[in-house]
Amino acid sequence: MQNRMANLSKWMKENQIDVSVITSTENVFYLSGFYSDPHERLLGLVLFQEEEPFLVCPAMEKGDAKRSGWDYDIIGYTDIENPWDLIHKKIKARTNKITKVAIEKEHLNVERYEALNTMFPNTTYASAEEKLQQLRMIKDDKEMSILREACKLADYAVEVGCSEIREGKTELEIVAAIEFELKKKGITDMSFATMVLTGANGASPHGTPGMTKIQKGDLVLFDLGVIVDGYCSDITRTVAFGDINDKQQEIYDTVLKAQLAAIDASKSGVTCSEVDLTARKIISDAGYGEYFPHRLGHGLGIGVHEYPSLTETNSLKLEPGMVYTIEPGIYVPNVAGVRIEDDVLVTENGVEILTKFPKELQKI
Amino acid sequence: MQNRMANLSKWMKENQIDVSVITSTENVFYLSGFYSDPHERLLGLVLFQEEEPFLVCPAMEKGDAKRSGWDYDIIGYTDIENPWDLIHKKIKARTNKITKVAIEKEHLNVERYEALNTMFPNTTYASAEEKLQQLRMIKDDKEMSILREACKLADYAVEVGCSEIREGKTELEIVAAIEFELKKKGITDMSFATMVLTGANGASPHGTPGMTKIQKGDLVLFDLGVIVDGYCSDITRTVAFGDINDKQQEIYDTVLKAQLAAIDASKSGVTCSEVDLTARKIISDAGYGEYFPHRLGHGLGIGVHEYPSLTETNSLKLEPGMVYTIEPGIYVPNVAGVRIEDDVLVTENGVEILTKFPKELQKI
Repeated sequence: MQNRMANLSKWMKENQIDVSVITSTENVFYLSGFYSDPHERLLGLVLFQEEEPFLVCPAMEKGDAKRSGWDYDIIGYTDIENPWDLIHKKIKARTNKITKVAIEKEHLNVERYEALNTMFPNTTYASAEEKLQQLRMIKDDKEMSILREACKLADYAVEVGCSEIREGKTELEIVAAIEFELKKKGITDMSFATMVLTGANGASPHGTPGMTKIQKGDLVLFDLGVIVDGYCSDITRTVAFGDINDKQQEIYDTVLKAQLAAIDASKSGVTCSEVDLTARKIISDAGYGEYFPHRLGHGLGIGVHEYPSLTETNSLKLEPGMVYTIEPGIYVPNVAGVRIEDDVLVTENGVEILTKFPKELQKI
Repeated sequence: MQNRMANLSKWMKENQIDVSVITSTENVFYLSGFYSDPHERLLGLVLFQEEEPFLVCPAMEKGDAKRSGWDYDIIGYTDIENPWDLIHKKIKARTNKITKVAIEKEHLNVERYEALNTMFPNTTYASAEEKLQQLRMIKDDKEMSILREACKLADYAVEVGCSEIREGKTELEIVAAIEFELKKKGITDMSFATMVLTGANGASPHGTPGMTKIQKGDLVLFDLGVIVDGYCSDITRTVAFGDINDKQQEIYDTVLKAQLAAIDASKSGVTCSEVDLTARKIISDAGYGEYFPHRLGHGLGIGVHEYPSLTETNSLKLEPGMVYTIEPGIYVPNVAGVRIEDDVLVTENGVEILTKFPKELQKI
């Protein structure tokens, strides 16, 4: 955490930013190690170029913050105190020169922005989000090992899902069974609402699970992830219930070929767009280009959508330590919906594939 | 919805507000009937004093908006369009006089606020949230019947929870079983993370379910809610597993007495504080005042925490159509945690109790 905060302070110096007021659960967690979501109450991490940082949280969370390893000052405010007054006093005790403040412009609401403006009437505001995304993009050893564990549990979740498939079961029943088994292992949070889609639903890239019943000859698509120690995994597998037709098989084979090729293309120094286009070309060449309407993948970490973004146009080069999804898909209405998604970690020599559930078409 | 938008336009006239730009999922749903959460993408409802309103949503959601019954204009923007440019053009076509704009200051982020400021450089901003909370506080017949259904399913969820209690089962296993049975009934979303707390965990008003195993002599606390058609229910019951001791029984009886008295005190014309203090006095008189650290209850509707707020100091008077929780609790560390919560609807002659699971201590 020392290192992460030092990286942000360095950026603040380079950009003449006097104070950063970070208020999102994700970025406070990333920088301080303290995970908290006090909802409408304020959570904040205040950082300077040189001076010691401090945390702001509801009084009843002060103990949790200390237990999480935070060694600097903490403002623990009660419901009858105005946290902004306390913050103002503490910032003034650290520095009097406040001309530029960094905030998360996509996160901070207008009410809080107005409170900051009242505190510092003659300042300009910079956005800290881009820089924090860049820092979060390169994972350290501890983050890698947590993500490995989160991916292992995602594999297990797909395994549970496959074992629950029966004629006539609804999508939601399978979702329920998966989450049931994970809760038994102590997992309380999924990366996002678990998706199990079958039949026509699977052919929509934006479907939501419902009361549709699984039938013989259906493809069943699982898209889910598990949160471990604040980090998200994300896996998609598509399996067959009974015998599928040639068209479904052809679509599956095309997606798998594209997915494997994108993994092969993933190497330090290669651009995100090259990886996206590797998969996209295979799908287009097979005649399914218009049925692959989304980017190839996205970064993963504390957030389920982080940098890097694997799009056709992103010229960012891959670097060791990046973790992202590779998830090509083909969705032909009333024919088939297939997506295959792995989480990969860029290494010195290619990538380590973190999700390991088999990708040869599983017939159930 | 016509009526709801007319109410907001009336308030705009009274306060010389030229345009309202509403962007939260909850308030857009309340005013327009269109439920959508496009995450980082913009959702907006733009209202005027006299002119027709319009909706803004991602292009792929335009069809859903129409199907939800929205009859006015819709801006459906693609990922390569800037929705603010489209909004600006459409507002200018409606009116040229923009001196005061209403926004949701607790919801709108700084990035979007800056986009509005660029569009309308010489305007002041008012907050629409207070007014919208006031409007949402009084439920109409349709809202009441949805809430009745949501409460019926909350009762069912507690019933499932009770039937799953066994020696050695973990809190999370019970949570999983409850959500499993609700998913089978087609319920995809709970009002908040389902809570099942036992033993020492139940004695913390902020506990989270984990791997703690249920043991004979424990109290088991359920706090959960179900979302039906966008509306939330919220119930708490505390049950006994096996025989409990006299202290636990005394605490239970005190909470129940306070809860029943607060229901009795709930009548149109009575203030929120009177209702809170009715329960609080019973708990204090029994010697447990310091162990009841939260307000008596909160409003319910599209949000799980709405107006009215049942606190010691809120002088707001109850009115027919309000729906709120009555949830006194006593939490004595290492002794017992008991909370009993119903959802009630204020009628002409008192209240209708919407949650009906028994409140006499259930022994399992």
